[in-house]
Amino acid sequence: MEIFERSLEESIETFKKLLNENRMTRFRTEYLALHNYEQSMIFANLEKEDREKIYQYLSPSELADVFDLLESQDETIDIYFEEMSPPYAATVLGEMYADNAVDVLNNLKNRERVNLYMKLMPAESAREISSLINYLDETAGAIMTTEFISVQEGLTLSAAYHRLREQAIKAETIYYVYVVDENDRLVGVISLRDLIINDEDKLIHDVMNTRVISVQVNDNQEEVAKMVQDYDLLALPVVGFDHELLGVITVDDVLDVMQDEADSDYSGLAAVDVSESHDTPLSAARSRLPWLVTLLFLGMGTATLISQYDALIAEASVLSAFVTLITGTAGNAGTQSLAVAVRKLTNKYDDDNFFTSLMFELITGAITGFIVGITVMLIVLVWQQNLVLGAVIGIAMMAAIIVANLAGSFIPKIMDKLGFDPAVASGPFISTLSDLTSVFIYFSIAQLFLSAII
Amino acid sequence: MEIFERSLEESIETFKKLLNENRMTRFRTEYLALHNYEQSMIFANLEKEDREKIYQYLSPSELADVFDLLESQDETIDIYFEEMSPPYAATVLGEMYADNAVDVLNNLKNRERVNLYMKLMPAESAREISSLINYLDETAGAIMTTEFISVQEGLTLSAAYHRLREQAIKAETIYYVYVVDENDRLVGVISLRDLIINDEDKLIHDVMNTRVISVQVNDNQEEVAKMVQDYDLLALPVVGFDHELLGVITVDDVLDVMQDEADSDYSGLAAVDVSESHDTPLSAARSRLPWLVTLLFLGMGTATLISQYDALIAEASVLSAFVTLITGTAGNAGTQSLAVAVRKLTNKYDDDNFFTSLMFELITGAITGFIVGITVMLIVLVWQQNLVLGAVIGIAMMAAIIVANLAGSFIPKIMDKLGFDPAVASGPFISTLSDLTSVFIYFSIAQLFLSAII
Repeated sequence: MEIFERSLEESIETFKKLLNENRMTRFRTEYLALHNYEQSMIFANLEKEDREKIYQYLSPSELADVFDLLESQDETIDIYFEEMSPPYAATVLGEMYADNAVDVLNNLKNRERVNLYMKLMPAESAREISSLINYLDETAGAIMTTEFISVQEGLTLSAAYHRLREQAIKAETIYYVYVVDENDRLVGVISLRDLIINDEDKLIHDVMNTRVISVQVNDNQEEVAKMVQDYDLLALPVVGFDHELLGVITVDDVLDVMQDEADSDYSGLAAVDVSESHDTPLSAARSRLPWLVTLLFLGMGTATLISQYDALIAEASVLSAFVTLITGTAGNAGTQSLAVAVRKLTNKYDDDNFFTSLMFELITGAITGFIVGITVMLIVLVWQQNLVLGAVIGIAMMAAIIVANLAGSFIPKIMDKLGFDPAVASGPFISTLSDLTSVFIYFSIAQLFLSAII
Repeated sequence: MEIFERSLEESIETFKKLLNENRMTRFRTEYLALHNYEQSMIFANLEKEDREKIYQYLSPSELADVFDLLESQDETIDIYFEEMSPPYAATVLGEMYADNAVDVLNNLKNRERVNLYMKLMPAESAREISSLINYLDETAGAIMTTEFISVQEGLTLSAAYHRLREQAIKAETIYYVYVVDENDRLVGVISLRDLIINDEDKLIHDVMNTRVISVQVNDNQEEVAKMVQDYDLLALPVVGFDHELLGVITVDDVLDVMQDEADSDYSGLAAVDVSESHDTPLSAARSRLPWLVTLLFLGMGTATLISQYDALIAEASVLSAFVTLITGTAGNAGTQSLAVAVRKLTNKYDDDNFFTSLMFELITGAITGFIVGITVMLIVLVWQQNLVLGAVIGIAMMAAIIVANLAGSFIPKIMDKLGFDPAVASGPFISTLSDLTSVFIYFSIAQLFLSAII
């Protein structure tokens, strides 16, 4: 895979040198020959003094193309815009795709600056941006763009084609033309492919597909992504409550949504945000400590519980060798069942009845618990030559696994029902919680058979 | 979000009824009015007798459109094709997009049937399929299609446009036209947008973009997905070793790759395959047991180690209360560090030096370990009124966290260096492994201070 003809580091050095030597023409020729994504990668690796030259050398429209591809780290975007003169910054924002401009504006800390930019930019851009800026995060409205192509159904294909040709430079996607009625309600869609293939004298009404796949403006971005993926779409129209066409979500934004959702599910399971990158160990430690310390307190519950069985352990110290084995294995089983449950919930194919699926997990836990329990019983029997001890550990293991399985499946479901993101329930949380139940089960059973163990 | 006008269940019932009553015309009218994805959802929910009617009612080309959108469960695809007459099946495969037909053929168990289909289908389709079928799984070659549009650079835009119009029905993507030289080497690209915007008398040579973003046929599908995502592409050309154009990867396939990769990373971390769906608890248990039992044996190592400290525990039974706390917390820290390391490796932005990044993780572990250690020391001091015990547990906690952090970071890196998928190293594996080291650290330190604890 060859992204840059030279390596990124070399490219950055070359461009820094050109900027340093004030070679504007050469800089523009070489920089503008790159793909916008490469331009954005280089831009993100420059120093303040280099960037300030770039604001002199590139037109707002050229810089807007770079910023459309910039993977926005919230804080740096703020810095870049602060460096530009307000009129320049406002023009850059106006030239960006409206959905991306909204992303930027939402990340600026100084709200007065946002108002200033909105006043300074062309009225049309300001209108598009204000129509988008109030949608809730992670909804269809928040990721859609208003720069789409729409026509009325009475037109001929040839007229539609000319309309498309006019708007092709500014529209974010030209591969679907949406058809609306006199009240702007979405009534059909024609793909550019159909526009090209069919006779140009036909009417849109006769060629359009009236079963348009669309989403509501408040639908969650995950549902949107699943729909684009299932239907193999390049863009998905977004409608309001009267089915009026409000915007379009393009597949490039869906790719970003999928990446964000994958990162967030993965982070949830691991109890650490893997999408953040940290420059210093201190900052990395700070992001990991909240969960660790919270779980430490939950773990203290387990320690307190074990200390209640002090007398039991003193009488049969062999018991303590198996605490970690039982808590660890039950924690592993709970993590598995948690992951399965969360995945079903986030992918929205969990249409089972609540109790049916808990019953399913109960039986799954019983089967895995039984097999793991028998295995550990046999090992302990051979190792310690003590059938009762083996049976106690085997039965405790089985019971602990069943409980951990149920907890792993039940907790995300309850969180989902209560309106929380089930993906926040982490593997470490389930492990630490199941430590408590496992210890309780283990020592309760051991207590019953104490006389036979020692 | 409204996918079906009626619910899926109702639609299935309606179509079953139409098939049962042999109402072919009505069935065709209603079924073909649906989106191909909806057709595929309904098809997947029918019984054998219904499907056999469908093979009579739909042309191979109509069924091919349905199968192009079918989310292929390997086993069911095999069953469907077995139900069709070989000439019908071969024609369906020939009419499908070549990359999807290859997926199907790779999932058929009976290799003789594959050969038969290849013989029975049109020569052109057979040629396209055989050119794709030998690429390694999860490479660019395996997900590309050969149905793209290419032209030579001497043509005018208007000639290219007519070429595109001719091929638009069959080509999987028409939104980029690729430009090749006389040896079929990729030399440029024009988007359909550029073709539409520019004057039709211009030469391709003058309009095309010569810095084409492309991938090698053997590149991993993850890199392909990252590239499409970074560059916001709708399609990505695939070249061979002489830079000859072999195929094109479309964004819909990239969405599927991202979903697969996200599922596989998530499954790796949880030590269970979340992408499988199980009909019975027995089958669910079977998929979870291998990891559980493997880790059980690793856990037995920890149990054996603890039993070596039997005398120590007998003398100071208070020690056993804190084993689970230390192993649990270190396991949680190890899971965090593992997740961060795996994510960096799979997203390919781990360009740090091996030792630099281990050092980073060592310091991160030292900071988190120090803070968690101090916290637990204070808690134990207040609870047990024993400074030495508190110090022993605090120091052991810190050391155990540092070791778990290093293991969580080191193990996936080593696996990656050795050519394994680092995402297979699971949270449960790291937890279970760090149980062993944590116990060793804890009891070794406790032994040193035994006289002061009791």
